[in-house]
Amino acid sequence: MFDIIAFDADDTLWHNERDYRRAAARLQTLLAPYQGAAVVAQTLLDTETRNLEGYGYGLKAFALSMIETAVSLSNGQISGSDILQIIHAAKEMIATDVELLPGVAETLATLAPHHRLMIITKGDLLDQERKLTRSGLGDVFTHFEVVSHKTPQTYRDLLARYDIAPQHFMMIGNSLRSDVLPVVEIGGTAVHIPHALTWEYEADVDHTHHHNGYYELPHINDLPTLLQQIAPH
Amino acid sequence: MFDIIAFDADDTLWHNERDYRRAAARLQTLLAPYQGAAVVAQTLLDTETRNLEGYGYGLKAFALSMIETAVSLSNGQISGSDILQIIHAAKEMIATDVELLPGVAETLATLAPHHRLMIITKGDLLDQERKLTRSGLGDVFTHFEVVSHKTPQTYRDLLARYDIAPQHFMMIGNSLRSDVLPVVEIGGTAVHIPHALTWEYEADVDHTHHHNGYYELPHINDLPTLLQQIAPH
Repeated sequence: MFDIIAFDADDTLWHNERDYRRAAARLQTLLAPYQGAAVVAQTLLDTETRNLEGYGYGLKAFALSMIETAVSLSNGQISGSDILQIIHAAKEMIATDVELLPGVAETLATLAPHHRLMIITKGDLLDQERKLTRSGLGDVFTHFEVVSHKTPQTYRDLLARYDIAPQHFMMIGNSLRSDVLPVVEIGGTAVHIPHALTWEYEADVDHTHHHNGYYELPHINDLPTLLQQIAPH
Repeated sequence: MFDIIAFDADDTLWHNERDYRRAAARLQTLLAPYQGAAVVAQTLLDTETRNLEGYGYGLKAFALSMIETAVSLSNGQISGSDILQIIHAAKEMIATDVELLPGVAETLATLAPHHRLMIITKGDLLDQERKLTRSGLGDVFTHFEVVSHKTPQTYRDLLARYDIAPQHFMMIGNSLRSDVLPVVEIGGTAVHIPHALTWEYEADVDHTHHHNGYYELPHINDLPTLLQQIAPH
């Protein structure tokens, strides 16, 4: 029934947000002489959101927004060595190991022999390629797409490119905003697997106008059973 | 004869390097109290090259390397407002208009009815998408690919994905390192159109082991004639 089963990557297949939180905590420590942690967190989120249209998603955008936040909240008093510390925090994120979420390896191994699996992710192209390589999952996925946005049109374009009808497309991810609602909108099947840590921007979604239309699973381990139920061989 | 004619984008279809040079000149001005222009230029290039493996190509990587250079060459004395100026220079580059190189619009209009045209470019995904939109060339190209590197393997993977034999693939660009030599290596046809401004990293190529095997055109206007000669209908 499904020609392609697509997965979001960050915080769906592997840990990601916790590294951003760790870097943000470091920024809070650096800026403690100037501002409280809550103000730093809020200003960083505001700066990231304001820069989103220009920078797009990913690690380098995050680093630039951290630097901008640091200069702004310190009234320009931040030291050069503190700026370097922020840059080093970003470089550490680039160099960090990829840790799969529980159940991911087993679930993908179960699905791969019977389905074409795909990754659809936002973020820096190079960074996501690197994470895929480090994850050891490269061979499991037939297709790997890094996109600049995840709007309904993004999914329409991808499906057209792969010549797949929406009713034969399933998308799985932790973000209602990016992975679930746009896929529901174009007539695909979406599965929401919440993650304990989800970037506030992604979590900021108006649920009130949404009448479900997607599946919610507590854990990726439940995916094969769901597939058996809704798309038995 | 050619199933796909592919073009590099930056400094092949539209101006790009001049915006980087302008931003680099601004960095030199900001750092004039600390270091001479030549040292700033060389340190920036060294920093970019060192960061290339981690950051990849594109505007945000450039911005981060400018900031790192500024902190380093000022011995940490650079002011917060100067850091903001660097960030603003990057944001200006993001917002800037796209100006096509002379002859590009006419040449592509001549080729488009008879050939499948493609863009293969490095850089930030979002930034390149934006430039394509602003260029007004979106309708001319059937395919648009942003890649993290341009190695022989990059081209092999792309050709496999589009199911195209190397002998039916032509690539046109201003960088010997990225657009020409790897395409020659995999058995494709490459056309080098030099640009007055080419990033030093791209220009840093060992020609000695290369026995040509590609075409060199002074101007993109000459492309239709070359195609008539080597691949007449």
